[in-house]
Amino acid sequence: MKSIDVCLTPDLLHLHTIDNTIVVVTDIFRATSCMVTGLAYGVGSITPVATVEECFELQQKGYIAAAERNAMKVEGFDLDNSPFSYMDEDLVGANIAMTTTNGTLSITKAKTSAVKVLVGAFLNLGAIVNHLKSQPYDVLVLCAGWKGRVNLEDTLFAGALVDALKDEYIIGEDSALMAMRAYQQAQNDLLGYVANSSHVRRLQRLGIHKDIAYCLQRDLYDVVPVLRGSTLVNM
Amino acid sequence: MKSIDVCLTPDLLHLHTIDNTIVVVTDIFRATSCMVTGLAYGVGSITPVATVEECFELQQKGYIAAAERNAMKVEGFDLDNSPFSYMDEDLVGANIAMTTTNGTLSITKAKTSAVKVLVGAFLNLGAIVNHLKSQPYDVLVLCAGWKGRVNLEDTLFAGALVDALKDEYIIGEDSALMAMRAYQQAQNDLLGYVANSSHVRRLQRLGIHKDIAYCLQRDLYDVVPVLRGSTLVNM
Repeated sequence: MKSIDVCLTPDLLHLHTIDNTIVVVTDIFRATSCMVTGLAYGVGSITPVATVEECFELQQKGYIAAAERNAMKVEGFDLDNSPFSYMDEDLVGANIAMTTTNGTLSITKAKTSAVKVLVGAFLNLGAIVNHLKSQPYDVLVLCAGWKGRVNLEDTLFAGALVDALKDEYIIGEDSALMAMRAYQQAQNDLLGYVANSSHVRRLQRLGIHKDIAYCLQRDLYDVVPVLRGSTLVNM
Repeated sequence: MKSIDVCLTPDLLHLHTIDNTIVVVTDIFRATSCMVTGLAYGVGSITPVATVEECFELQQKGYIAAAERNAMKVEGFDLDNSPFSYMDEDLVGANIAMTTTNGTLSITKAKTSAVKVLVGAFLNLGAIVNHLKSQPYDVLVLCAGWKGRVNLEDTLFAGALVDALKDEYIIGEDSALMAMRAYQQAQNDLLGYVANSSHVRRLQRLGIHKDIAYCLQRDLYDVVPVLRGSTLVNM
């Protein structure tokens, strides 16, 4: 039987062996929600990079560049970190380079040894579930968190995946069990449940209510972003 | 206003500054439950050490020595890691040296910079709460976890502390919020809630049902174990 486990922050990734595993990276507010939205709206590819410098280099090579730090757009780049910015006709077929505080770093950390790296969000939850079920591999959900810390929204997404797969997968360690129970507690009112979370407080200070509500919607898009080499494409 | 935060495993302790903070270390199954029980039953002192070698050295100097690895007593030592072993008249006034897989390492990690290190368990929950309220410092609950991983029972204890202090303290990051909500979900049936946890499965294989039920009881003892130098004593 396959197993599913949850890594609550990239700072705990050293505890997991991921050789025979599909890693699903999630950063609900807002990196992976942007990626899913972009690919659903026809973006050609998204190249996640760990640093602002790498992002700038790709911008020089003609990529559309998106750089976020501390939830704000870095000066001189083309796109901010709102999923609504990715619903743009001008981006259809475009190659985007992206760096964010937490999400893209997690992707670059995961890609070293996993069988495959997928990008998940509530927006494509069902599509991820269906793809995982069709594969013979174990699953690790890697929550991007916030600067190494655990956060609520990524944990809830991890819990939603565990909940959806619990009948066909062995649940790994307690973090997976805790995430699943948190999701079961929260699922009928995700927005209310995250209302006091640190990241929502951080984003609300920036006035991004609309993004928060949007990123908590389930199954809007039937896309499965997968890392091919260094670039995310729709599977 | 004072704040309370939760560190879900010692592998995340680097994310916290603890200079102005009382750290409450917890390792419910079973190190800190043993310590609380021992001090409640009249043990003179307990010296937590990180390694089996250090524990052996103190045994040579006349300490009663307790060494546990992977939930079992290490050959050649005097005491195992069951709280019932600490309810012994022969231990009244004794100096005990103790090393365990997770709990004692967390204590030695915390003592470098905290204002004060306390040892908490469900058994002395109310006593810890009362002491913390009387102090002017922030609080960090440090969960010992299992070899770096997050576990359910320590998280629940952390959540119980956050829940008890939430009206007088600012709740820190999302890990504190998650722990509190897990405790609120679990509080009426702690034993049922942890039944599927990894550590309970581990302990049940070893046939230690009685210990599990015992360690989940609240407020049996009015003791506050505090680290003085390298040694835990009843405050």
